Amino acid sequence: MDYITILGLIAASLTTFSFIPQMIKTWQRKSAKDVSLVMLITFNIGIFLWLIYGISLQALPIILANGVTLFFNIIILWLKIKYR
Amino acid sequence: MDYITILGLIAASLTTFSFIPQMIKTWQRKSAKDVSLVMLITFNIGIFLWLIYGISLQALPIILANGVTLFFNIIILWLKIKYR
Repeated sequence: MDYITILGLIAASLTTFSFIPQMIKTWQRKSAKDVSLVMLITFNIGIFLWLIYGISLQALPIILANGVTLFFNIIILWLKIKYR
Repeated sequence: MDYITILGLIAASLTTFSFIPQMIKTWQRKSAKDVSLVMLITFNIGIFLWLIYGISLQALPIILANGVTLFFNIIILWLKIKYR
C-alpha cells in the first residue's frame, strides 16, 4: 500500500471515530443544547448521500467510512432529540 | 456531468456547509459545553489529513470540500476554547 493510501485511511479513521467522544459526552451529560440540530440533520443527510455515492461507485472505503460515521451520528441525533 | 458526480457534489456540499449552523449557534450561545473538545481536535486533524491527501492526489473536490470544512471547524474549535 502506498503512502498516499495510508494517509487517506488514517484521515478516514480520524474523521469517523472522532464522533465516539461526542456520543459518549452527550450520553454522560444527558444534554446537547450547544449542539446544533440543523447541523446534525444536514450532516446526517450529507453522510447518507456519501454512502449512496460510495455504493454507486462500489468504493468500499467510502462505503465503510460513511456507514460507520452515519451510525455514530444517528445515535448523536437521537440523543440530541431525546435530551432536549 | 453524470448523476453519480452530481450526487457526490450534493453530499460534499451538505457535509461541508452543515457546520455553518453549529458555528452560528456557538457564537450566539457563547457556549459549547456540550460539544466534545476531543471530537473537535480529532476531527480537525482528520480533515487536515484529508486535505493533504487531496493535495497529494491533486483532487480538487477533496481539496475544496476539506479546505472549507477545516476552515469552519477551526473557528468552532476556537469558539469552544474561547468560551469554556
